[in-house]
Amino acid sequence: MTTTRSFALALICTLPLTVTAYEWQALPETAPAPTDNPTTPDKIALGKALFFDPRFSSTGTVSCFSCHNVMEGGDDHRPTSIGVHGQVGGRNAPTVWNAAFHVAQFWDARAPSLEEQSKGPPVNPIEMGMPNLDATLKRIRDIPGYRPLFAAAFQGEDTVTMDNAAKAIAAYERTLITPDTPYDRYVKGDRQALSAEQIKGMETVAAIGCTSCHAGPAFNGATLATGPGLLMKFPVNAKSEYVAKYALTKDRGRYEVTKQDADAQLWRVPTLRNLVYTAPYFHNGAVKTLDEAVRVMASTQLDKKLTEPDVKAVVAFLEALSGNFPEQTMPRLPATPGTLLE
Amino acid sequence: MTTTRSFALALICTLPLTVTAYEWQALPETAPAPTDNPTTPDKIALGKALFFDPRFSSTGTVSCFSCHNVMEGGDDHRPTSIGVHGQVGGRNAPTVWNAAFHVAQFWDARAPSLEEQSKGPPVNPIEMGMPNLDATLKRIRDIPGYRPLFAAAFQGEDTVTMDNAAKAIAAYERTLITPDTPYDRYVKGDRQALSAEQIKGMETVAAIGCTSCHAGPAFNGATLATGPGLLMKFPVNAKSEYVAKYALTKDRGRYEVTKQDADAQLWRVPTLRNLVYTAPYFHNGAVKTLDEAVRVMASTQLDKKLTEPDVKAVVAFLEALSGNFPEQTMPRLPATPGTLLE
Repeated sequence: MTTTRSFALALICTLPLTVTAYEWQALPETAPAPTDNPTTPDKIALGKALFFDPRFSSTGTVSCFSCHNVMEGGDDHRPTSIGVHGQVGGRNAPTVWNAAFHVAQFWDARAPSLEEQSKGPPVNPIEMGMPNLDATLKRIRDIPGYRPLFAAAFQGEDTVTMDNAAKAIAAYERTLITPDTPYDRYVKGDRQALSAEQIKGMETVAAIGCTSCHAGPAFNGATLATGPGLLMKFPVNAKSEYVAKYALTKDRGRYEVTKQDADAQLWRVPTLRNLVYTAPYFHNGAVKTLDEAVRVMASTQLDKKLTEPDVKAVVAFLEALSGNFPEQTMPRLPATPGTLLE
Repeated sequence: MTTTRSFALALICTLPLTVTAYEWQALPETAPAPTDNPTTPDKIALGKALFFDPRFSSTGTVSCFSCHNVMEGGDDHRPTSIGVHGQVGGRNAPTVWNAAFHVAQFWDARAPSLEEQSKGPPVNPIEMGMPNLDATLKRIRDIPGYRPLFAAAFQGEDTVTMDNAAKAIAAYERTLITPDTPYDRYVKGDRQALSAEQIKGMETVAAIGCTSCHAGPAFNGATLATGPGLLMKFPVNAKSEYVAKYALTKDRGRYEVTKQDADAQLWRVPTLRNLVYTAPYFHNGAVKTLDEAVRVMASTQLDKKLTEPDVKAVVAFLEALSGNFPEQTMPRLPATPGTLLE
C-alpha cells in the first residue's frame, strides 16, 4: 500500500499541472520514407542540389528554395508566391519544414507524396514555367556535373531520370524536420520546457477542440499511415465575420481540382509547427498575424470567440512548436555550361 | 664554380618549361579590408544573413543572393538579371566571388567600395525595387531578430543603420574569395598543379597581351591599392567582326554614368577567375561559351585571331583559375513579423 501511494504522489508531482484527455505526441527524430525510396546520404546530397538550383525554371531564376526558404520558415512570407516573369500565384506557399509528415501534398492534397509534389512546380506556368517535364529533365542532363551525383544516388545504367530527380528531392525534404522544440521536450518529460502561459495555451488548444483537426505529432490532422482523416472543411461556420473579411471562400479548395460539390472548401490540414516563421496565414495569405489567425480559426471552425488572454496563451503555445531548425551547409552546384539558358 | 652550376641546373629543372617575363601572382588567402571596416566574425554573420535575406526587396523575393548565387559562380548565369516583378536589367551580373579584390564595383566602377555597392541594388527599381534606403532600413528594423546581430557586430547605442548594414555585407563578401586554385598552387611551386595544355594556355595569355589589362592576382587589371589602371576600353578594335555580332558597343559603359565622351566604352576590368562558372559573358551576356569569349577578346582587344588549339589552351588555363569555393553554412534568418510585407 505504501509503495502504491508513494508512486501516486510522485505522479502528481511530475505530471503537468492539469492533464487533458488529449494524447500529446512529440515529433519523431526522423521522417518515414516509402519503401521504394529509402533515404540515403547520396540521395539527400543530390536532392539538396536540385532543390536549390534555379536553372530548372524557364528563366533560370526560380528554384524550390525561392518559395520554400529553409533559411527561415520554409516559405516565402508572401500572401501568394511569385514565380517566373513576376507572375503571382493563387495560394500561399506551405512550409516545407515537416512536409514529410503530411499525408498528402499541396493545399488541396492533389499530390499523394513528396515525390509527386516535386514534379508540379517546374511545369506550372506561373511557378517555374517549363513547358513540360522532358524540358526540365533536359536542363538537368545539360549540366554534366549532375551525372556523377545521380550515379552515386541510384542504381542502373542511365540514372538521370525525372523519377530519380523527384526521389532525391523528396529524400532531401525528409531531412527538413524540426523535432525537439520546447513542446517536444515538454511532452518527453522536461516540465521546464514550457512557460506557464504556454501550458495554458496547450490546454486551451485541446479544450476548445483545435486538436480534433490539428492532431498527431505535426498537428496536421493525419500522420503518414493513420489519422483522423485527410481533408477537412474550412471555414465550417459560414456566419463568421472573418469569412467575408478575409475572403476565405473565394478559393473553393479541393473543389478546384475535382469540380465535385462535395469537395467544396475541403483542405488538407496544415501543420501548426513553425507558424511563428510563416506569416501571413491561410491558403490565401490574407491574415497577417498569428494572433489574428487564432481568432479566425476559433470563430470559423469552432464558432468560439476567445478572450484576448486565451489568444495570447495559444500564440505562446504555438511559439513553443517552432524552431530547432537543423543547421545546413549550402550545396555546391555543378557548373553551368554556356548553352544552358537560351 | 661547381656549386653555382648545380644551382643553375636545379633552376632549369624546377622552373616551368618556358618562363615569360610576366610576374604571375597567387591570390592572397584573405581579402584586404578598409581601416574603418575591419572584418570580424560578428560582422560576417550579420552580413551573410542580410546578403541572403529577400525581405529587403519590395516583393520580398529578391536578395543579393538571387543574382549572386554563391552555391555556384556568384552570378545568375543569365545574360542580364531579373529583379522584382519580372523586370529584366541591362547588364550581366558580375560574380561576387573575389569582388573584394576589385578596385571599384559595378561594370562602370561607379561604386568605390563593396560598402557603397551594397546600397545600390535595394533601391534600383528593376532590381530590388525599394523606394529609398530609409524604406529598406525600416524593413530591417521591423525584424526584431536582427537587433542583437547588429549589436554584436557594431559599437554604439543604435547600431541598426544602413551604413552598418552595408559594412556587414561588405565584410561577408570579403570572405567570398577563392585562393588556392590549381593556378595558385602552380605559381606557389607545385609544378604538377597544371596540365601541359594549361601551361601552354598560361603562356599564351601572357604572350599575346591579355595580362596587360587582366593583371594581378585576380586578373582584374588593378589590385586594391596599386595597378595598371582602373578602367579600360572595350572593344578597342572597332573593326572586329564580333562588335556587331554581339552588339558590344550598344551599352557605352562608363559614359552612361558620366555622359563624357572620353568615357565611352570604358569598363572596369572583370576578373578572369571562375569564368567556367559564369557563362554567359561580357557586360551584355551576349556570348554563351568561354571559347567564344576568348576569340572575341583576342579579336576586339588585341586584333588577333587565335588558332583553335590556342583557344583550347587558353580555356584550359582559365579552368585552372576556377573553383576551390569555401564551404558555407546557410544562415538562419530571424523570423518575419506578420506585418512586414504589405
